[in-house]
Amino acid sequence: MKKINSLGYEVVFDNELDELQSFLIDHDYSQLLILVDRNTNDHCLPQLQAFIPDIVDYDIIEVDPGEENKNIDFCIGVWKTMLDFGADRKSLMLNLGGGVVTDMGGFAASTYKRGIDFIHVPTTLLSQVDASVGGKTGIDLDNIKNIIGTFTQPKAVFISNKFLETLDDRQIRSGFAEVIKHGLIKDKQLFERCMNVKLPVLPEEMVYDSVMIKNEVVLEDPTEKGLRKILNFGHTIGHAIEGYSLYHDQEPLLHGEAIAIGMICEAFISYRENNLPESELETIVNYIKGIYPAYPIDQAIYPTLIELMRNDKKNESNQLGFALLRSIGDCDFNKYAEEDMIVESLDYYNQVIK
Amino acid sequence: MKKINSLGYEVVFDNELDELQSFLIDHDYSQLLILVDRNTNDHCLPQLQAFIPDIVDYDIIEVDPGEENKNIDFCIGVWKTMLDFGADRKSLMLNLGGGVVTDMGGFAASTYKRGIDFIHVPTTLLSQVDASVGGKTGIDLDNIKNIIGTFTQPKAVFISNKFLETLDDRQIRSGFAEVIKHGLIKDKQLFERCMNVKLPVLPEEMVYDSVMIKNEVVLEDPTEKGLRKILNFGHTIGHAIEGYSLYHDQEPLLHGEAIAIGMICEAFISYRENNLPESELETIVNYIKGIYPAYPIDQAIYPTLIELMRNDKKNESNQLGFALLRSIGDCDFNKYAEEDMIVESLDYYNQVIK
Ligand SMILES: NC(=O)c1ccc[n+]([C@@H]2O[C@H](COP(=O)([O-])OP(=O)(O)OC[C@H]3O[C@@H](n4cnc5c(N)ncnc54)[C@H](O)[C@@H]3O)[C@@H](O)[C@H]2O)c1
Ligand SMILES: NC(=O)c1ccc[n+]([C@@H]2O[C@H](COP(=O)([O-])OP(=O)(O)OC[C@H]3O[C@@H](n4cnc5c(N)ncnc54)[C@H](O)[C@@H]3O)[C@@H](O)[C@H]2O)c1
Ligand SMILES: [Zn+2]
Ligand SMILES: [Zn+2]
Repeated sequence: MKKINSLGYEVVFDNELDELQSFLIDHDYSQLLILVDRNTNDHCLPQLQAFIPDIVDYDIIEVDPGEENKNIDFCIGVWKTMLDFGADRKSLMLNLGGGVVTDMGGFAASTYKRGIDFIHVPTTLLSQVDASVGGKTGIDLDNIKNIIGTFTQPKAVFISNKFLETLDDRQIRSGFAEVIKHGLIKDKQLFERCMNVKLPVLPEEMVYDSVMIKNEVVLEDPTEKGLRKILNFGHTIGHAIEGYSLYHDQEPLLHGEAIAIGMICEAFISYRENNLPESELETIVNYIKGIYPAYPIDQAIYPTLIELMRNDKKNESNQLGFALLRSIGDCDFNKYAEEDMIVESLDYYNQVIK
Repeated sequence: MKKINSLGYEVVFDNELDELQSFLIDHDYSQLLILVDRNTNDHCLPQLQAFIPDIVDYDIIEVDPGEENKNIDFCIGVWKTMLDFGADRKSLMLNLGGGVVTDMGGFAASTYKRGIDFIHVPTTLLSQVDASVGGKTGIDLDNIKNIIGTFTQPKAVFISNKFLETLDDRQIRSGFAEVIKHGLIKDKQLFERCMNVKLPVLPEEMVYDSVMIKNEVVLEDPTEKGLRKILNFGHTIGHAIEGYSLYHDQEPLLHGEAIAIGMICEAFISYRENNLPESELETIVNYIKGIYPAYPIDQAIYPTLIELMRNDKKNESNQLGFALLRSIGDCDFNKYAEEDMIVESLDYYNQVIK
């Protein structure tokens, strides 16, 4: 068992989740609510129940799976179900699922009766290496990602790789994009280790190492006034593509798949505007495009994408803000790029995936 | 000009609002959004504009007036309008209105892009003496009052009695209920001064004194773990009646009118369960019922009211929690009452208003 100390709570890595049961018993919560989506209800809840055999009294709140349901309508449904279950201020919400469940459950809990405690048991690679740590909660509005949310820390995070067994390869690959990102922005060695991984299997300690990197950044800047912005590498463009795809594609891109595209574009901008060496750009691009499916982007939608970027949370005063690499393992924030440069980067992406 | 220091911000009492303009100029906000309802747009915005002649660049967000619009649908409308105006993380929201505008605007701001700054310029007596101070934001869901919200402090509050000139007597009376409450729970002298007031005119310093009392309580217990619960005197029963009235009456009770009923009922419970002297009960009841309209409560709706009380935020584990007076000017919290006692108190109310 390993632990990482985050902002007033622990991230516990333990495949048997031994400490979860004692956490629940030791804390004097009036009620336990478990938020799941249909998939984690089927695949993860039985596992969770086996981990906490002495806890038999809880209520289940189930939502439909998928990013398209990480919205205010489902959130209202969660709030109303909490009310129906008579949840009071001393209730605990346990979010069992991927980033959609942890983001939306965290938001619902942080605003229900002006805030009740919640913990995360992340069940996707993405939520284990990234979404469950750092205190960002949120939901989408229209197709603007995470536009409504709070900074609220969970009371604990419990990570077990057992949950990953039922996750399909595409989801593993999606989550892996955030591991790559953590390497690119802060740990060249981690990036090099990524290049040696034969997906969909990855070494257990990579999850831990990835959380370590994210946590270091978050501890220094919890509310994203500065340094934390480097975690958005790939996300300015990636979020716009993700939001667009969600509304327009039959089978939308997953978060990590969109971020992978965003990382290629933003690595290109880093090369052009922030002295990222061309050889490193090529290493990054060749590696990423080898893992993720090509997604040709019609030039006709560029203006829509740029509009979505403007609406993104991180953009102040209509300037388009970016985190840009200086080299692999080193990232700057509060960089700005012109529309032309973004268009060039999208063209570049279309070019390299040919 | 007077000032009160609250949780990291100042409450400024100044009829000319001289400091508001310099606050806006000194802070480096990217954008100013002013939230109004239709009435404050008509009656208060011109006044505000006169106070800040050098500030000409802002966007107005208007909502429909009234408690029935303090809900998630209107909040979504506010969020979307903020997006349309391109509000970013460095925008400031100025809430110009009564408790509905300050509560909902505070909530919308505290969750937009995970939180932007906001200030309050309260324009009703109720919001000046109570709602604008203390950091509670919130909206109603179905007819459950303030069930969704956050604890987030404004960056400043600016109070001018000029705004009250256009407020009708019924609203003044409603707001005055919270002044009475502040006297009852913590300041016998203030309560006695209340009894000498000839509504709808009240001495200016009463607003200040009322905020002082609320602020003292809030500073000691910002997130209502203990002492702050005394501010809920009258509200356990009052909120239920307010929520009920909102859904069922052609012309619903105002917040303070419902709280006045709640204070009579809860004073009765205080007498029966918390040693409030009978003579003081009579003083309180005779005084309050002399100011507020009688609102006979059909016994058939008692179960609905009790159900609403159960759903109220402040109730942990299905026990019905109350703040109960020990004497005028002295209040206890974490008191519990049985359903029978609540029924008796409603009967008592029906009796005394005959
Ligand atoms: N809060 C943050 O800091 C942060 C960071 C990164 C990403 N995110 C958010 O996370 C979301 C993406 O997370 P995600 O990729 O985990 O998405 P997700 O929650 O939608 O999970 C992906 C799919 O896998 C299913 N699933 C989950 N666990 C499973 C399991 N163990 N076995 C089988 N199926 C399982 C889910 O039902 C879903 O269909 C995005 O909304 C993104 O914005 C948030
Ligand atoms: N956050 C808190 O701590 C707190 C405390 C007490 C009450 N509240 C909330 O406050 C709300 C009640 O506040 P309220 O009574 O101010 O209600 P309100 O905001 O609805 O205002 C009452 C009416 O007066 C109008 N109005 C406002 N200012 C005016 C002016 N200067 N001239 C003419 N008309 C004007 C409004 O448009 C509205 O129609 C309730 O929702 C209650 O829950 C919150
Ligand atoms: Zn991400
Ligand atoms: Zn009140």
